[in-house]
Amino acid sequence: MRVGVIGGGQLARMMVPPAVELGVDIAVLGESEDAAARIAVTTVGDYTDLDTVLAFARDVDVVTFDHEHVPQPVLRALVDAGVAVRPGPDALQHAQDKLVLRRRLQQLGVPQPEWAEVEDAAALADFLERVGGRAIVKTPRGGYDGHGVRVVSAPHEADDWLAEGPLLAEEVVDFQRELAQLVARRPSGDVALWPLVETVQGDGVCREVFAPAPRTTAVTERVSREIAHTVATSLGVTGVLAVELFETTDERVLVNELAMRPHNSGHWTIDGAVTSQFEQHLRAVLDLPLGSPEARAPWSAMVNVLGGPADGDLDSRVPRLMADQPTAKLHLYGKATRPGRKIGHVTASGEDLDDAVFIARAAAAFFED
Amino acid sequence: MRVGVIGGGQLARMMVPPAVELGVDIAVLGESEDAAARIAVTTVGDYTDLDTVLAFARDVDVVTFDHEHVPQPVLRALVDAGVAVRPGPDALQHAQDKLVLRRRLQQLGVPQPEWAEVEDAAALADFLERVGGRAIVKTPRGGYDGHGVRVVSAPHEADDWLAEGPLLAEEVVDFQRELAQLVARRPSGDVALWPLVETVQGDGVCREVFAPAPRTTAVTERVSREIAHTVATSLGVTGVLAVELFETTDERVLVNELAMRPHNSGHWTIDGAVTSQFEQHLRAVLDLPLGSPEARAPWSAMVNVLGGPADGDLDSRVPRLMADQPTAKLHLYGKATRPGRKIGHVTASGEDLDDAVFIARAAAAFFED
Repeated sequence: MRVGVIGGGQLARMMVPPAVELGVDIAVLGESEDAAARIAVTTVGDYTDLDTVLAFARDVDVVTFDHEHVPQPVLRALVDAGVAVRPGPDALQHAQDKLVLRRRLQQLGVPQPEWAEVEDAAALADFLERVGGRAIVKTPRGGYDGHGVRVVSAPHEADDWLAEGPLLAEEVVDFQRELAQLVARRPSGDVALWPLVETVQGDGVCREVFAPAPRTTAVTERVSREIAHTVATSLGVTGVLAVELFETTDERVLVNELAMRPHNSGHWTIDGAVTSQFEQHLRAVLDLPLGSPEARAPWSAMVNVLGGPADGDLDSRVPRLMADQPTAKLHLYGKATRPGRKIGHVTASGEDLDDAVFIARAAAAFFED
Repeated sequence: MRVGVIGGGQLARMMVPPAVELGVDIAVLGESEDAAARIAVTTVGDYTDLDTVLAFARDVDVVTFDHEHVPQPVLRALVDAGVAVRPGPDALQHAQDKLVLRRRLQQLGVPQPEWAEVEDAAALADFLERVGGRAIVKTPRGGYDGHGVRVVSAPHEADDWLAEGPLLAEEVVDFQRELAQLVARRPSGDVALWPLVETVQGDGVCREVFAPAPRTTAVTERVSREIAHTVATSLGVTGVLAVELFETTDERVLVNELAMRPHNSGHWTIDGAVTSQFEQHLRAVLDLPLGSPEARAPWSAMVNVLGGPADGDLDSRVPRLMADQPTAKLHLYGKATRPGRKIGHVTASGEDLDDAVFIARAAAAFFED
């Protein structure tokens, strides 16, 4: 069994350990020799170039992804060439285009924020009036980690983006917190859902995850699972799907965004679940039976390492972290430090959530200045 | 940080996942391109050839091992060239030569079976008389997994081996079970001990491990830990040390053998302990603070996959195993099937030992014919 991963970032990197354990060979099409997933990079090349991608795909049993940026024409040419592409282009377009996603979720009756496709300032003005004078506008494509997202309160504040094409406008949701429901689905249709988690964002980037989501009602849990199950099944997702959710102040659950790949909100599963999202993704895209998604411990807390020390010297921080927090699980992505960049994460698990959070935060803090 | 591992077997392979997670680069000097640790093989060559090993060592911060077969002259030349070699040659000789080990344990007052160095049939006759007519003879070097070990009851039954040099003769210990105490030690002297485990052997090969060792007295536990601590410290071991023990019918604990590397008796730690033996080995040889060796679950059971199906087709067995045992953790070593060969293992963990044993055995059974 041989899996090919397009993209050499930390998600591809974190697929390597379970591939090694399962006896699955893994090959990565990376952007450069020193990609985060460099240990598995077999081809360095451009994922938008069909010949490069086709040549890479020839030697593997299934192609999957570190990111959602492979163009639809390339994906469809792979399928036409007989390559197993998981998730496939029909599913992936919902993760590639936020307008396609909103339309589809509306058809499916899945709860989501008020939204509109706006083509000009007049349409944005209408939408602003409808949602109380403030809205979030998003470029339909290419945004991630807060890029391509802007809060506006006047119609002309998005003129620069509107010049490029239609935008997605969304109401500013009055949420009490953000949640994420991860699910894996294999081509045969089986799905496995991990416990619902709480995510804490800052500047559009995931900072912390608490698993399971503390103080959660049975209704919120059930609705979140139903939403993820519906989306995974209706969109024909294969592999891991992350459904990012708002829990509103009036306790509704609304779909914020989707990711069709392992996701930051699931990094805790490496240490905290019987089957990690990375192992499950491999199983799912290989159409193998899914592993148990249950938690190994009552509570896990994951804290991202963002940016890293200004001097770039991670190696001097690692021993201090390890000496201070011998139960913390450290994950570094083999990336150079840079302000705001995700360069690693720390997970702690145990009987008590506060303890786990304390340990994970204390460990991650060794990488701050 | 960059670790170089000499030898490309499953132990090197299983160092790859924690290296990837910790952000440590790992390079392997393997016997062939398709070694079990092939994903990390950077040099294919002969580990007995000094030039090959020196060239390999030049690009890494520390050299460690998948096996104990690197000749002493090569090890000492590495040290002379300024390479950090962990464990070092002084420690490793005790794992390379069973006579050297027996002498040293005797000096240290560590409990072990009755033994003698025998140079000829007359000496073996004397020893046989002393221990009741039956003894185990072992070639001091090169034995593993039951190779180089023979039970004799007459002096001339070892003549073929005696022609090659002196042998180690040992009493046949009347043991009720076998135990193993794993410990890791870093150059600074810190040690961390995992829970004592029970190992079940067959034909000289490890079959099953139960962690922690069930029905164990506090004395046995304490003595086992003291022995491992003494041996690791006195011999100056760096990295993981496995001390294989006999628990006698009169409840003494005697040292059977040592391994100075991650060991089959510690495979359960990948899934069952906060810090696996492979992560801990990397930390120890890099002189990083050691992680917590505590168990993640009350019980873990590890069952080896030996030989594999006669048709060599592992891929068809994997889905059946996964469908049947979704909580079992499967580890395959990327090796071809061959009677008696260790090609993988399965671990199960939980609140109940019998359940864990059942799951691990049921899973491993999918690879039998």
